[in-house]
Formats: sequence, C-alpha cells, structure tokens
Amino acid sequence: MIPVYAGIDLGGTKILAVIVDAEGKVLASEEQATEASRGHEAIIRTMAEMVERLVKEDYSLQGAGVATAGTLDPVTGTVEYAGNLGWSNVPLGGELQRLLGVKVTVDNDASAAAFGEWKAGAGIGTQHCVFITISTGIGSGIVCDGKLMRGRDASAAELGHITIDWQGRSCPCGNIGCVEMYASGTAIGRQAREAAAADPVRGARLLALAGGDAAGINSRHVGEAAAQGDGLALEVLRTAGRALGAGLVSTIHIANPEVIILGGGASRIGEPLLGPMREYIEAHTIGSMRRGVSFVAPKLGVQAGAIGAALMLS
Amino acid sequence: MIPVYAGIDLGGTKILAVIVDAEGKVLASEEQATEASRGHEAIIRTMAEMVERLVKEDYSLQGAGVATAGTLDPVTGTVEYAGNLGWSNVPLGGELQRLLGVKVTVDNDASAAAFGEWKAGAGIGTQHCVFITISTGIGSGIVCDGKLMRGRDASAAELGHITIDWQGRSCPCGNIGCVEMYASGTAIGRQAREAAAADPVRGARLLALAGGDAAGINSRHVGEAAAQGDGLALEVLRTAGRALGAGLVSTIHIANPEVIILGGGASRIGEPLLGPMREYIEAHTIGSMRRGVSFVAPKLGVQAGAIGAALMLS
Repeated sequence: MIPVYAGIDLGGTKILAVIVDAEGKVLASEEQATEASRGHEAIIRTMAEMVERLVKEDYSLQGAGVATAGTLDPVTGTVEYAGNLGWSNVPLGGELQRLLGVKVTVDNDASAAAFGEWKAGAGIGTQHCVFITISTGIGSGIVCDGKLMRGRDASAAELGHITIDWQGRSCPCGNIGCVEMYASGTAIGRQAREAAAADPVRGARLLALAGGDAAGINSRHVGEAAAQGDGLALEVLRTAGRALGAGLVSTIHIANPEVIILGGGASRIGEPLLGPMREYIEAHTIGSMRRGVSFVAPKLGVQAGAIGAALMLS
Repeated sequence: MIPVYAGIDLGGTKILAVIVDAEGKVLASEEQATEASRGHEAIIRTMAEMVERLVKEDYSLQGAGVATAGTLDPVTGTVEYAGNLGWSNVPLGGELQRLLGVKVTVDNDASAAAFGEWKAGAGIGTQHCVFITISTGIGSGIVCDGKLMRGRDASAAELGHITIDWQGRSCPCGNIGCVEMYASGTAIGRQAREAAAADPVRGARLLALAGGDAAGINSRHVGEAAAQGDGLALEVLRTAGRALGAGLVSTIHIANPEVIILGGGASRIGEPLLGPMREYIEAHTIGSMRRGVSFVAPKLGVQAGAIGAALMLS
C-alpha cells in the first residue's frame, strides 16, 4: 500500500482533485465543472466521488486537503462566506471528512498554492518563502520558519491588499492604495487604457493590438507592445513593476524570506515588469534583509493549490 | 526542584536578566550596565554570572534565551552585526551555552517582547497576535498560528518599516514612506516642530511647553498640549494616528490577528493618537479580517523582552 494524500482545489467554475505521494508527486488528477448553482451538498459529494475514483486499490488515503477562496475557519474547516460559490457557513471540512473517512483540512487557495510551491515546487529546501501570483488580482501566501501563515480566518498574507500609497486609489476591499490597484493585470490594463486615451499618438501600438478599441486594451496587449519596444507600454510596466517592488519591500520587511516565488499571467510579461520591480527592491530594502533573497518562477502551475492542500497533512 | 528559565535582554546600555517559571512568572531579576566597550567576551561572562546568581538552589535551569538588537542567525545564535554593541559575528548563543551548560536561544528584542506579551502578558489565550511598541522608533513582533515569526535573520515583523507612502519621506533604513517616518515618537516631535515653525501663533502652546525653543518640541510636549485641547497638537496626532492606522491595516491584512498589543511611550498619549488610528482601521480594513480584532495595552512593561526570551524554550 502506498500512502497517498488527496488535494482538491475548489473554484467557482471548476474543481481540480489530485492524489499525491508524501513528496507531493502527482499520481492522478481529475477536473470537473463546479456548477455552483447545485448547492453545497451536491458539490461536496462530487468532491468526495472524485477522490474515491482517483484512489486506486494499492493506495492508502491518509488525509485530504481543500483549497478554496472565501472566509474560513481553519480549525473547524467551515467556509464562513465564499462569494464565488454563494456559500455561507458551509461545514465543508466536516462533511468531506464524514464522506471520505479521513482527516480533512480546509485552507485559503492562495495559501495552499504557496504551501505547495514551498514543499514540492520552487521553494524546496527553504524555510522562509513568499509566494505571489499576479494575474487579474494578486494572490499570495507566506511560509515563515517552515510553517504556513494561516491567521485567525485563514486569510493571512493578503499581500495584494497592503498599502503602498495611503493617499492613492481606493480599492474595492475598502483600503486605499493597495498594491493590487497598481500592479495587478487589471491595474496594468487600466493604466494603459488611461495613458493611451490621454495620448493616442503614443498609444497607437496598444490601440492597434486591441483592434482599434481603446477600451479593449488589457495587460496582455501591454506585454506584447512592451516586447516590441513600445515606449508607452514600457512606461506603464515600469510604474507597475516599481509598485510591485514597493509592496515586496514591505513584504520582505515583514516576512524576512529567503526566496520569493513570483507567478501568474502578468509575471510572464517578464523583464519590462520584473526589472523595475527588482531595481526598486534593491534600492529600498533594509540591506541585511535584502541580501541573498532570490526571485524564482513557480514550478507546479495550476495544480499548486491542489498539491499544497494535499500536503497539509503529510 | 522548580524548573526555571533564564531570559536576558541585552541592550546597548544595560543588561536585564530574569528567572521565570514555565508560565512566565518572574521569580528573580537583576540589572547591570552593559559597558559595551569591554568587548563581547566580558559581556557574555557577565550575562552568565547574572544568571548563575539568580538561580537558587531549588531551581533547575532548563534553558536560557537572549533578546538583542541586530542581525542574527537564529539557528546558530550568532550575532552577525549589532551596531549598539559594536559586535560583528559574535557566537553569543554558543558561548553562553558553554558557560551555562543549558540550551540557549537568541532572538530579536522586539520579537522576544512580542512573544513574552503573547505567552505571559496581554496576548494570553490567543493564537494570532501582533505586538507593536511606539517610542523613538517602532518595534514589533508577530505571533501567527501560535508561533513567533522569526524569518531568515530573526528580523521578521519590522512593522515600522512597511511603506504607507511610496512617494513620501525617505527613511534611514533605505525605504521610502515607512510608517515609522509618520507615526513614531520621533516623527510626532518632528511634525510638531515643523507645524509650529510654520505657524507660530497656532504653535504657541507647544512652544511654551518646550520652554520657548521650537527646536526642543518633542512627542511628550505634543501629548501634553493635546491633553489641554491644543488644536495644532491634536492635528499632528491625528495625522500620526491615521498613518499608524494605515500601517496596521497592512499588518492586519498580512497577519490576520485576533489581538493587537499596542505599547511604548508614544502610545500612552492615548485617544488623540489612538482614536484616529482605530477610525482609520475601522474604515479601511477588509471586513472579515477587521471584525473582532481587539486593541489592548501590554502588561509586562520593560521586562517583556527578557520574559519572552526566557519562554522561548519553555
């Protein structure tokens, strides 16, 4: 019998389940549509069935972990509120535990991805690791002293919502000047749209990439234009990269990490975004805390959350 | 035999040693001048002698912890650099362990104070606790999931050096717009001096409190003037309180605590500083993370660091 762990990434549109060994190697995986409208009982049953199908005869299931968005009680495994699923006070951990007959943990999806990358991906061998993923929004997790930071509601390490400019843009989260308002894919697209509207001549290439529709400019177009040497795109990315750097200076001052794993769609824009970010960090981090911090790409891709959830009990 | 733990707060001017029981109750204490010019060997010997004097015949010393400033290697207990002592690469933990014959840990002084307040002071019974002390500078520590955040160099939780305004004031640490530049006692004094110089009529009371010398205005005078209803002092403290609030919003978004322990000389100014701070936090923190977070005063006073250091091995 091979001891295995199940990990389930429960999203608003799809459910990804994996079976891993104690080192986090994926032995099997399955994906299903969530169909959130079915309600939580049907969804939890689907999650259990997916795991049961994936566990072969010679596997011995040791435990299961769920990665999900929303406000959680990490002790009881209850989802207190999850907007993407329409859930309030769903005893997810307890129900799944009853169905599977093994211990079940429930964690924040970004934290689970951080834990997965740390334990089985780009953070292997470190004790202090920050994971940050820049796409539509900014997701993140922190491992400090070999332990994932969870916090009271499993909401710790909301690095997208730390302030870089307390007199800046209002964020939908309620805060002012969150790094997410300046450095997410959404923010990069918005800043490019604003800049192109203000100066259509300099914005010509961005406009062309968006098929002539200024309102359609997004972060992908900005990345493409920057790769072609477009001045406006490079400027937008330089500002976004420096903003990201400012957020990471605060993060380094709080988490004192060895490694920062930087992923997500927007991070693949590469140097035009990451160069100014590194420059800012180099210039403004406390010397002793900056020295030796490395920046690496994630290794587990979209399975990071599920793998991390699975490894919570390993 | 009573199992006891020794804690030593090693500062640039004095050394405080305590003996505590497993609950952190202080059984004995002693204070000595550091006299840093004697060099590290003499100082470490003094620390060992202080502990030996304090350990009575019916005590069984289980371990010792040191709280100190500087860059540390928490694994080996080496002080890599400590400006206040003039130390570079001093094997403090190893040497003290040899002299005392028990296991010795070495931690950052603010982190040790946070740990002490959490385990034996105002944070008892919680699992997620932020400690912040506002005096000349801002010191801080974070306990998350029942564990002190240390980080690679034992420098984690430098909350004074997170950014609130990345286009603001340069901080001696190298960063821009650190909360310490707006909300420390030093910053409060500076802002009051600047405001009184710009408007001597409104600054009259502050000037009088400082004996007529605008350059002598400090945060204590600002607190006194505010207590008397002085408009300028209240304005300075409102700005500082809101800046502190902005730093704490980021802190709550990262640490997801249950309780924030707020100490230090400047915090004793009270409502004129803390009211605007709480207002800012109330208005700008993510709802689920803000709810139920309490703000309390520390309980251990100047012994917090030594008590926390002692409890590291308990």
